[in-house]
Amino acid sequence: MKDDPVFEMATRVFAAQPFTVFLGAELIEAGAGFATITLPLRSDLKQQHGFAHGGVVSYLADNALTFAGGLALGGDALTSEFKINYVKPAGGDRLIAKATARSVGKSQAVCQCDIFFEERDGTPTLCAIAQGTIVGLKR
Amino acid sequence: MKDDPVFEMATRVFAAQPFTVFLGAELIEAGAGFATITLPLRSDLKQQHGFAHGGVVSYLADNALTFAGGLALGGDALTSEFKINYVKPAGGDRLIAKATARSVGKSQAVCQCDIFFEERDGTPTLCAIAQGTIVGLKR
Amino acid sequence: MKDDPVFEMATRVFAAQPFTVFLGAELIEAGAGFATITLPLRSDLKQQHGFAHGGVVSYLADNALTFAGGLALGGDALTSEFKINYVKPAGGDRLIAKATARSVGKSQAVCQCDIFFEERDGTPTLCAIAQGTIVGLKR
Amino acid sequence: MKDDPVFEMATRVFAAQPFTVFLGAELIEAGAGFATITLPLRSDLKQQHGFAHGGVVSYLADNALTFAGGLALGGDALTSEFKINYVKPAGGDRLIAKATARSVGKSQAVCQCDIFFEERDGTPTLCAIAQGTIVGLKR
Repeated sequence: MKDDPVFEMATRVFAAQPFTVFLGAELIEAGAGFATITLPLRSDLKQQHGFAHGGVVSYLADNALTFAGGLALGGDALTSEFKINYVKPAGGDRLIAKATARSVGKSQAVCQCDIFFEERDGTPTLCAIAQGTIVGLKR
Repeated sequence: MKDDPVFEMATRVFAAQPFTVFLGAELIEAGAGFATITLPLRSDLKQQHGFAHGGVVSYLADNALTFAGGLALGGDALTSEFKINYVKPAGGDRLIAKATARSVGKSQAVCQCDIFFEERDGTPTLCAIAQGTIVGLKR
Repeated sequence: MKDDPVFEMATRVFAAQPFTVFLGAELIEAGAGFATITLPLRSDLKQQHGFAHGGVVSYLADNALTFAGGLALGGDALTSEFKINYVKPAGGDRLIAKATARSVGKSQAVCQCDIFFEERDGTPTLCAIAQGTIVGLKR
Repeated sequence: MKDDPVFEMATRVFAAQPFTVFLGAELIEAGAGFATITLPLRSDLKQQHGFAHGGVVSYLADNALTFAGGLALGGDALTSEFKINYVKPAGGDRLIAKATARSVGKSQAVCQCDIFFEERDGTPTLCAIAQGTIVGLKR
């Protein structure tokens, strides 16, 4: 994705989110209607049973949905609402959230997101799915 | 809530969540079917426009829902799914999430949560509402 | 609510929905930010176990949310999205959905709805809760 | 799907739902983890603007999710909760809901559903997407 101006713009917005930097997430792929975010699962991000905290997984869903939808809408955007189902405890070494826009209108996009955890060898396991509405910010 | 054994147990579980400690959240009230969590809104928790990141607000919803439902169910529990609507950008000095169980069965509870931000003078403004399913862990 | 022009307007819109007439629902209360709909539970509306079909309960949620939100926004509106949790099988003689707007902006309202079934003696039991976004139609 | 015992069982359960018969829906495809339901869009099923009522679309989502999840779980099941985003007004001649199980556990399945409307010439347009939890009934 290097040298892609849309990806570079998205990366700048992503890096301008203090919470994203605090967690250590990385935007590894992004374009009109899609975004992929990864996050190494260090111990600060866990709950009392040693898995990723639900709030970490929901952060990834929220943010991947926002970027997929915002890039589909062509600019800055925010998540109006989303819903997440946790389907497996999120263990492993790294979390990956992949969001895509399923429907794009003039002012809002409806997106879905799959969240996986990855073992050290890279095997992915689906741990959550999410769906939400992204609204473009008027400029 | 001091000297209440349910609140003391809940406080221990809460403090055993590394992510909760990392964010700096505090459980200020909890019992069978309700939980209130606060979080000072420092800059690490913000997005690029200076408001609380959606992932921070969704962490509060997820965790307050889990504690309200888990305490209603009488033990350790996890969030199976939830939905959140962000209704206002979350500014202010402090976030507060108040969750209550609306229906409690043998193995699951359905809960709702209001999330507010508070100005320095304590005035609360509703910034998100959430609804979700909490499932008790078999023991 | 007789002689209330807002309620009369809402009643006209309600009666102009062929599906609502087909099901036999009645709008019994409505104003800026709230709406109550009832539906006698006849056998056509049931599923294979003798309870109200989930689709009937979700119709009530969808429609009560739309009217509560639309009236809060001051005009015709549609449901952009909603989420429903079924908390008890819906038996009894009559269903009642009560929706209220929790947050109202310029173009959208976020609403919640409780759905009850009523025994012959009028005792209500909560059977579902819903939450959704209503968007005003531009005029 | 003729002569498939799973499809035949599903068809019997489907036909045993009075509300499904009342609306005129048809189960055209079903197996472990998937189900497709169609519904001719006659005028009784519309709202005041001539499109399918949201309650009709949500009925299709609810029921397709239940059959996809129930067949994945191997028996009778019910929808615990779901969320639906309406992405386009549902016009056309016929609605089609296609649901698939995304994750299947011992007692519950998490499913997604796309709902389309079809013009007379068969062209499909996505009009809603849904996601929900199906719980197996203990036997």
